[in-house]
Amino acid sequence: MLLHLQTWQEVEAYLAKSTAIIIPIGSTEQHGPNGLIGTDAICGEAVGRKLGETTGTLVAPTIAVGMAQHHLAFPGSMTLRPSTLIAVVKDNVESLARHGFTHFYFVNGHGGNVAPFSSAFSELYAESSLSRPGNRPPIRCVLRNWYETPKVKAISRELYADQEGSHATPSEVSLTWAVYPQTVKHMKMEPKVAPRGTFTDAADYRRNFPDGRIGSNPDLASIEAGQRLWDAAVADLADDLASFVKLKA
Amino acid sequence: MLLHLQTWQEVEAYLAKSTAIIIPIGSTEQHGPNGLIGTDAICGEAVGRKLGETTGTLVAPTIAVGMAQHHLAFPGSMTLRPSTLIAVVKDNVESLARHGFTHFYFVNGHGGNVAPFSSAFSELYAESSLSRPGNRPPIRCVLRNWYETPKVKAISRELYADQEGSHATPSEVSLTWAVYPQTVKHMKMEPKVAPRGTFTDAADYRRNFPDGRIGSNPDLASIEAGQRLWDAAVADLADDLASFVKLKA
Amino acid sequence: MLLHLQTWQEVEAYLAKSTAIIIPIGSTEQHGPNGLIGTDAICGEAVGRKLGETTGTLVAPTIAVGMAQHHLAFPGSMTLRPSTLIAVVKDNVESLARHGFTHFYFVNGHGGNVAPFSSAFSELYAESSLSRPGNRPPIRCVLRNWYETPKVKAISRELYADQEGSHATPSEVSLTWAVYPQTVKHMKMEPKVAPRGTFTDAADYRRNFPDGRIGSNPDLASIEAGQRLWDAAVADLADDLASFVKLKA
Amino acid sequence: MLLHLQTWQEVEAYLAKSTAIIIPIGSTEQHGPNGLIGTDAICGEAVGRKLGETTGTLVAPTIAVGMAQHHLAFPGSMTLRPSTLIAVVKDNVESLARHGFTHFYFVNGHGGNVAPFSSAFSELYAESSLSRPGNRPPIRCVLRNWYETPKVKAISRELYADQEGSHATPSEVSLTWAVYPQTVKHMKMEPKVAPRGTFTDAADYRRNFPDGRIGSNPDLASIEAGQRLWDAAVADLADDLASFVKLKA
Amino acid sequence: MLLHLQTWQEVEAYLAKSTAIIIPIGSTEQHGPNGLIGTDAICGEAVGRKLGETTGTLVAPTIAVGMAQHHLAFPGSMTLRPSTLIAVVKDNVESLARHGFTHFYFVNGHGGNVAPFSSAFSELYAESSLSRPGNRPPIRCVLRNWYETPKVKAISRELYADQEGSHATPSEVSLTWAVYPQTVKHMKMEPKVAPRGTFTDAADYRRNFPDGRIGSNPDLASIEAGQRLWDAAVADLADDLASFVKLKA
Amino acid sequence: MLLHLQTWQEVEAYLAKSTAIIIPIGSTEQHGPNGLIGTDAICGEAVGRKLGETTGTLVAPTIAVGMAQHHLAFPGSMTLRPSTLIAVVKDNVESLARHGFTHFYFVNGHGGNVAPFSSAFSELYAESSLSRPGNRPPIRCVLRNWYETPKVKAISRELYADQEGSHATPSEVSLTWAVYPQTVKHMKMEPKVAPRGTFTDAADYRRNFPDGRIGSNPDLASIEAGQRLWDAAVADLADDLASFVKLKA
Repeated sequence: MLLHLQTWQEVEAYLAKSTAIIIPIGSTEQHGPNGLIGTDAICGEAVGRKLGETTGTLVAPTIAVGMAQHHLAFPGSMTLRPSTLIAVVKDNVESLARHGFTHFYFVNGHGGNVAPFSSAFSELYAESSLSRPGNRPPIRCVLRNWYETPKVKAISRELYADQEGSHATPSEVSLTWAVYPQTVKHMKMEPKVAPRGTFTDAADYRRNFPDGRIGSNPDLASIEAGQRLWDAAVADLADDLASFVKLKA
Repeated sequence: MLLHLQTWQEVEAYLAKSTAIIIPIGSTEQHGPNGLIGTDAICGEAVGRKLGETTGTLVAPTIAVGMAQHHLAFPGSMTLRPSTLIAVVKDNVESLARHGFTHFYFVNGHGGNVAPFSSAFSELYAESSLSRPGNRPPIRCVLRNWYETPKVKAISRELYADQEGSHATPSEVSLTWAVYPQTVKHMKMEPKVAPRGTFTDAADYRRNFPDGRIGSNPDLASIEAGQRLWDAAVADLADDLASFVKLKA
Repeated sequence: MLLHLQTWQEVEAYLAKSTAIIIPIGSTEQHGPNGLIGTDAICGEAVGRKLGETTGTLVAPTIAVGMAQHHLAFPGSMTLRPSTLIAVVKDNVESLARHGFTHFYFVNGHGGNVAPFSSAFSELYAESSLSRPGNRPPIRCVLRNWYETPKVKAISRELYADQEGSHATPSEVSLTWAVYPQTVKHMKMEPKVAPRGTFTDAADYRRNFPDGRIGSNPDLASIEAGQRLWDAAVADLADDLASFVKLKA
Repeated sequence: MLLHLQTWQEVEAYLAKSTAIIIPIGSTEQHGPNGLIGTDAICGEAVGRKLGETTGTLVAPTIAVGMAQHHLAFPGSMTLRPSTLIAVVKDNVESLARHGFTHFYFVNGHGGNVAPFSSAFSELYAESSLSRPGNRPPIRCVLRNWYETPKVKAISRELYADQEGSHATPSEVSLTWAVYPQTVKHMKMEPKVAPRGTFTDAADYRRNFPDGRIGSNPDLASIEAGQRLWDAAVADLADDLASFVKLKA
Repeated sequence: MLLHLQTWQEVEAYLAKSTAIIIPIGSTEQHGPNGLIGTDAICGEAVGRKLGETTGTLVAPTIAVGMAQHHLAFPGSMTLRPSTLIAVVKDNVESLARHGFTHFYFVNGHGGNVAPFSSAFSELYAESSLSRPGNRPPIRCVLRNWYETPKVKAISRELYADQEGSHATPSEVSLTWAVYPQTVKHMKMEPKVAPRGTFTDAADYRRNFPDGRIGSNPDLASIEAGQRLWDAAVADLADDLASFVKLKA
Repeated sequence: MLLHLQTWQEVEAYLAKSTAIIIPIGSTEQHGPNGLIGTDAICGEAVGRKLGETTGTLVAPTIAVGMAQHHLAFPGSMTLRPSTLIAVVKDNVESLARHGFTHFYFVNGHGGNVAPFSSAFSELYAESSLSRPGNRPPIRCVLRNWYETPKVKAISRELYADQEGSHATPSEVSLTWAVYPQTVKHMKMEPKVAPRGTFTDAADYRRNFPDGRIGSNPDLASIEAGQRLWDAAVADLADDLASFVKLKA
């Protein structure tokens, strides 16, 4: 169930049965020579929406621009500042909590989002923790990275071993190709496997990782792998979501 | 050209030819008994993307949650506060300006966005106006409502006359049906044409407009009308965009 | 009744009869070769105060510095950022709402204020819309441009036709002269009627409109016209205010 | 010279001779049984403007709503939060510094403004202190309380001794009567001299000072005293301003 | 009683007897040729903690970085912007008020903190003053400068007369030496007594006060004087604190 | 070398040799029945300062109040909101970067700080990434948890195995006892090992973990263990810091 394709009466009916909602989150940033700028948002949305379908859970609009300041030396990359993201998450969650939603399940496609979203959840909880008991509706938020579920990690290891890397990985490129087969692009990477390392700001990142990849060889990607990874992520998250909604808000 | 389906090298190549970008904006809010919660984002995105296709202009990710505080008494509606929207627009534009984009063309599907986005543009310009000349890259932003272009207004008048109204209109419902034919929903409206009037906050809105519509009869919507309106909006905006990109940033 | 000339006991007595208040708003910015920098604040205040007198409504202090970033390339122009204006309006309205004021009628003299003040009203309403019903006192805000009331527009058309323009207009200059007759300044404009067009930031504005005027010939201004326009604005707004205070907050 | 009564060319000419500007600041808050709600703004403005006249210094629009949270339990009182005031002062000063103004002389009528304005100056300076040298134009801000100049204090002591108090004082009431003779209001105060003490928020203030006065007997006020105090303040501040403008910005 | 050395059950027991807490505040900034960068935080903490010991009052962690933008041209100096300090004080006080603390006694070692902390208290009170009565717990905040108590000023005058000055004073240097005897550093000052004057930002400060001192000769400092001043400050503040806790929150 | 015990000339001399600085960070929050409220700040500071001593690195003042909203249902716990922490870290780092510091090494004692500090680093980097190259000095920030270094984890496993837990652990209690031997407190825990689980806000946390511990038995703590852990953390971090300072800023 996609929130944007419901009427308000249908949402009202849904709330009588469930107060959980999935929010896909991603990023809009370079993903190396053959990866799409939308990779993280595409993956978060694809997994989040199929998860919603599988489990009968409502899915909110994707937050497609995340925290990606370190990619800004590559054309097309976009970022929200962490402080902006905190405000965005606060408004999203408060809007939905107003209607009675209590369980917020963020399906994430981008490592750079983890800290700012976790901070945003704390900012929301802090409003409740600092106020008089009962003044604010109880909520529970969680963020899950689709690329770190057990089944997904097993497949990545099996298929890509030490060519998986950590940015512009063959796994995420595969998943985007499963969603958009018309975007398949094979090319020789130079070097075959990108360097590894740390980074600070955009200038530092580009200096260390000249074509944008970190530790990966995304030329190994394939539509078939993408389909397997997609299904695996949804299967794992469906179990996790089932446990999550049982927790008290 | 959709930004999220490009690689960074393709964006680099695009920037050598053009520094304009389209950003679709919408809202996620109730649209009456048979309108979708995503109506405004669907329309903004559908028009914005087809405009990009027609004109060869790059299209950024849609900002799907806008300023819709007045709809929050209807389940599923979401809002960003105006102050949050200002921060979001600032970060979106500054990210892209960093790469050399200069002309930002926002295709809008929601009246409630007009003032906050206009304020956000002024906030961006103010940083430049208050600083020493040359400290910030020149930019130019504009917002266009797809539903107010000449051809669109002519069709709305022809088809719906005084049953068009101003919220949950048959025109916008038609356009969403052209995009998502599976969501067509016909039902008798009660009253046939909704009341008109003003509103302040969410409680006031719901008191005045109990089923969410303002002045409209969206049961008149049709896929065919939606297709006509879509094409009309794109045709009008293509002309306007061509003039816009000629203005100095 | 001017708020600043009352005692608190007189305000307490006023509140027993009426919970409406007029807030004049303007701007402090260049107004061409013979227009005053305070033109918009002078006009907003003059109309707002006479409206208060005519209708027996309390008038708050004028907000004299508005959103005028685009005028900053002309000496003496001042601006508040839109985000600052949102905070200012919020504090003004919350202060007065604390005492029981419910109807806030902003009499505006400056086009650049429309979007930021509208955003500020939405920010205020959003606090109510996002919170539990009843947590905040109900309020209703509206902004009216004195220069767009029917009678005023008729006079402008009659007197100035296509030399009225949209900035540093003979109408607004006339009104300031009616208020401050000692400031009358006649001079030949070069060109007689200023160019029209769009603008972004301060540098762009000055490039396009070298002496500050847009589309106008303010040498046509006169004290007599100013007096007529002043009376016309007050007459129109008095009717409008009478309707406004009848709306539920 | 009042900024709002100049044209931009006249300001340009002024800047060729002087880069100093006076900004009157006040407050809009209860002033006891016979004091006006605008007392502090009226005094700040009256002194600031006459000072401008006497010394040939430009005078910006008055900031009429200051920091007066502690008065909010009395109808008609208004406040800006300190954080809002910081933003307002920042935008006012940055606007004028953009044109080349370097010396900002705030003439203050309200004790509650001292800390927030001082904080705002530090916020402005901090932007310069934290940035690379030369990135921001040099500025110098100072705030002077008209009621604490030597001559003014001597007159207050002479006329009112221990009935002067610290809020709703006969001195400030006298000055407002000199400006607005039509507002003279004599009445028996009960008790004759108000209690003294400390306060925190609005509820605490009203509990301690039931009619709004602190330590004063404003029934002693007179137009004549107001005129003397006005002249005395201007004389003292004119000397001080002459020294101030000689300091390096 | 130091908060950081208690268990939560011990704090719970304390709250049953007293709802007052001491918060030492200081600054981290240059203090001339022989003064420590931590002088103000060391003094605030030393006096605040001994005051807690003497009076049996709980002492919260020291806020060691204050508002010191004007010292930033000297290596090692640190500042919080006033707007940051307002947020910090708000969170500190709201955290403790949540547990039932009502009386917040800030022992201060730095003049530059006075305005920002006073502003922060007003920001806290304003939340209460602007909201409906009873929505927020009552609190009372006060700031005391250890170096301005009567006994301390008498000793400073006796020992240092016109070589005390106002920054990097022999009194404060003495107190830090009493706390950290290993930091005693004697050296000839050049000139013996530093110049006096005003300052704006960091560049202006360093221009006027090349070695960081203002009006002082800190070579006069001694451990013995530090011990006397320390005891004197605690004795004075103990009396003041006893009065403070009797005031209604 | 402790920053607060240096003169500014000594810092100037230090900067000629090294531009690295250690900043200890902790939290002020309940730590179960026998743990101190300051546990995390004490540990962060003890490890950070000994690390500074061992490696000759300057150590800035400890940030003693961190992000601990989830502990606020236990008396004495304090928190900064994530958005406040972002501002604090920004001002701390910008102050020191102004003097030429480039490498910021945060030694952390509290898990709840990880996300907000990481977000704060991104906020700082984003300012650089979004601006024109060269406009801001290059910096590099890193956060290390003392309790997660290899040697520390080995000792914890050896001594406490599955009674270590994740909050109010015997390891951190041991370290505080090594620092403050007078605070040793043995008592029977009930249950011996605390429950494990997740939490959201303060109410949820206290419901799940009634005495504040998570998964731990801090009665196993000892001064001897604390001394071993302290040395181990410093040894591990000294190696890590040596690598860190070699990275380009």
